[in-house]
Amino acid sequence: MLELGPVPASIAAAYDAERFRADGHRLIDRMADHLAAATGRDDAPVIPWVAPADAAGPWPADFGDEPAEDLVDVLDRTAAGSIRLHHPRYLGHQVPPPIPGAALADAMAALLNNGMAVYEMGGAATPQELAVIDWMARTLGLPATAGGLLTSGGSAGNLTALLAARQASAGFDAWTAGAHAGPPLTVLVAATAHYSVARAVRALGWGDAGATPVAVDARWRLDPADLPRALADATAAGRRVIAVVASAGSTATGAYDPLEPIADFCAAHRLWLHVDGAHGAAAALSPRHRHHVRGIERADSVVWDAHKLLALPALCTAVIYRDVARSYEAFAQEASYLFAPEREWWNLGLRTLECTKRMMGTILYAGLRAYGVGFFRDYVERVFALGQAFAARLAAAPDFELATHPDANIVVFRYRPASGPSDPAELDALQARVRRRCLEAGRFYFLQTRLGGALWLRTALMNPLTAGEELDGVLAAIRQA
Amino acid sequence: MLELGPVPASIAAAYDAERFRADGHRLIDRMADHLAAATGRDDAPVIPWVAPADAAGPWPADFGDEPAEDLVDVLDRTAAGSIRLHHPRYLGHQVPPPIPGAALADAMAALLNNGMAVYEMGGAATPQELAVIDWMARTLGLPATAGGLLTSGGSAGNLTALLAARQASAGFDAWTAGAHAGPPLTVLVAATAHYSVARAVRALGWGDAGATPVAVDARWRLDPADLPRALADATAAGRRVIAVVASAGSTATGAYDPLEPIADFCAAHRLWLHVDGAHGAAAALSPRHRHHVRGIERADSVVWDAHKLLALPALCTAVIYRDVARSYEAFAQEASYLFAPEREWWNLGLRTLECTKRMMGTILYAGLRAYGVGFFRDYVERVFALGQAFAARLAAAPDFELATHPDANIVVFRYRPASGPSDPAELDALQARVRRRCLEAGRFYFLQTRLGGALWLRTALMNPLTAGEELDGVLAAIRQA
Repeated sequence: MLELGPVPASIAAAYDAERFRADGHRLIDRMADHLAAATGRDDAPVIPWVAPADAAGPWPADFGDEPAEDLVDVLDRTAAGSIRLHHPRYLGHQVPPPIPGAALADAMAALLNNGMAVYEMGGAATPQELAVIDWMARTLGLPATAGGLLTSGGSAGNLTALLAARQASAGFDAWTAGAHAGPPLTVLVAATAHYSVARAVRALGWGDAGATPVAVDARWRLDPADLPRALADATAAGRRVIAVVASAGSTATGAYDPLEPIADFCAAHRLWLHVDGAHGAAAALSPRHRHHVRGIERADSVVWDAHKLLALPALCTAVIYRDVARSYEAFAQEASYLFAPEREWWNLGLRTLECTKRMMGTILYAGLRAYGVGFFRDYVERVFALGQAFAARLAAAPDFELATHPDANIVVFRYRPASGPSDPAELDALQARVRRRCLEAGRFYFLQTRLGGALWLRTALMNPLTAGEELDGVLAAIRQA
Repeated sequence: MLELGPVPASIAAAYDAERFRADGHRLIDRMADHLAAATGRDDAPVIPWVAPADAAGPWPADFGDEPAEDLVDVLDRTAAGSIRLHHPRYLGHQVPPPIPGAALADAMAALLNNGMAVYEMGGAATPQELAVIDWMARTLGLPATAGGLLTSGGSAGNLTALLAARQASAGFDAWTAGAHAGPPLTVLVAATAHYSVARAVRALGWGDAGATPVAVDARWRLDPADLPRALADATAAGRRVIAVVASAGSTATGAYDPLEPIADFCAAHRLWLHVDGAHGAAAALSPRHRHHVRGIERADSVVWDAHKLLALPALCTAVIYRDVARSYEAFAQEASYLFAPEREWWNLGLRTLECTKRMMGTILYAGLRAYGVGFFRDYVERVFALGQAFAARLAAAPDFELATHPDANIVVFRYRPASGPSDPAELDALQARVRRRCLEAGRFYFLQTRLGGALWLRTALMNPLTAGEELDGVLAAIRQA
């Protein structure tokens, strides 16, 4: 019998439960201290800016054979070098300061590491995922036939939904026979949609013309009146239109495409309706904001990121189908070591891009149980109120211009002092300069974006602890910069 | 000025640092207790089996407005309902019991939640990711031009690499012009490759014929002698062959495709060589096992899952290109609110399927610093030694049959008692029955797979704490079942 020998000391040490306990308690205190400093509005920068060329300094790649640094110390240094989403002066991307308790759920999920491809590798995580999907589908008003799964981000989610749309609507079996078995495909979508849609159609082999642009209205929303023209043009160009992709809301401005007339158009022309609600589907939680997603209950597929307006850490994206049977067609494939040939609803890997997958559902399930739906509604209403409050300040300030009144918590604006430039290029340069100076100072973090050919400043107000003082403060900081 | 009002109580409570601290310390103790029980070989089942139809019981979807359960209690229940990867009787999938400290790193990464699409949203995580990619590329022996990124799993990794291969080798701009602008594409790949390759080619619109099968040898490795035939057949069928996909090792048996002759073939025919090293690339860490991946340094792209043989929690997959410039071609796309038009190496979202991404690099970086490269080498050598030791036991047991001598830590075998059936269908049924009974008993967890048309039992020995007693024990359990 081949002799195994004892477990090496390095392995025994790494897997020692008491070492984990001691490291864990130390880490929790450091994490709590970081959180307290950020939520307590300390005076340190919200972003500790270092030029990219200098970034590698603290993080060399010369890993040696032996342990070189205490685990908690590496993580502490990581926190010190990272942008602080929990600070109320974080006015940045559509990435929330996660509920701190969700980071605890994440730790348990990581330790358990149930791989989720098959039910056996997710005895709790699988029913938890199906439960949260069920809750999300009901929240959106989808019918009882609805169902879906969680996947690793909105980009993967949009790709997955488009695969299902292709199989349902292409008119030929693109999965098995390939693209050449039918005409080139396309979807109708506004240029304001997230770039992952444009990427997905190109990955699927539809090329640039795989996304047929639909005009937007003055508020950068898809204009349903342009859909017949877009459909006719794409068809005349030899493309088969399989779907309309609507944004709820769009990335740049947070504006919601008008879903009801889009759904009418899809019904009339038998097109798949995919709603990218990665950012804004959570409006359905609020009686006050639910009207923005009216019509989403008529979608064939919806993407909804829990790591945006449900305040979870990345990544946790729901792909929900009006008819759950469609979910099996996105990846019409089997692997004998995993799946039996029949449709096994309990083995989620049949329907996800991932084979091994994180226990994402556990984190959302735990959040809904521990904080209640009320917390999530309060979160959405708070960050949407921040958007309204910031827009009101900008509208009242003579030296600022608001791009459009925000539907949600994303606000696009620019600095136009009376003494400033009126030439478009110089105006763009002013925004870039202001943004650069504020970034390097690190006190406030906000963004820039191109909209209608011009450069604008942009914020997604994701931190519910942000208050009026920060909204006033960022305008003052821009004036000074 | 629109009045914001105070932060709602539900939000203040959820984001309270002291609540986090208290919950965190409680959770760490529960996690440490779970870990101690599993690594201490307690007598409870390794998998607490519940039939899928009954799984929803403890996890209803009726979330109410108010908090309904203590966070730590939900997570504790989750642990109790999950398969225990840290128990030495876990002999299951290619999913490791993660280093417990990595779960702590995961918690910090989740709390910081730096979104990674742009450098600003990952001031520490971006250089950490580039550092671990650099270390992985050097470990594989790739040239100084090599580089890449981390993505959410091996399936996303293989898809990403095939997108780059398509752009480099299709002979037309498939990204922009679409599939119809050129002939149908295909890759040469053995049927033993992971199912994610077969899925990826179908997602890309190449259909069933997008994967041209290459014969395997008696040990289920790609047979390089069959490559010219496969190339000729695919070409004769009107397909353009753009790449060979080799497995290091393959999923079912862990066998390594012979990379050197495959690389010779690719060089002679100017084909992209993609090596799916999701499972086995880590053999490069061990002088004893490095020979299995000889030739990997000649690959154009490699996928390597840190959440397999680097013992990290899912998901953390490296996509490494021989020429880092290729990494920009997988997703030749820009989004104005994120990226400037030039190639910004520091904004990783240009090159990943994900827009928002987890801080995966942080977890691997912290692991390499805190445990040293020596730990990871010891891990690989230990689990490979387990594969050898288990194979030796099976070879010595008259009532068991070994499918093939294992290269790595995956062992495929079946139970063939002298008194048992010889009819193939009955022999298959015996394996399924044995596996089912052991699953339901929950004492040992192992798998079944189809190989060469027959049903076999299978284990990936991922737990380095597994010892001879478990290897003997599972054979005894199978005999009893």
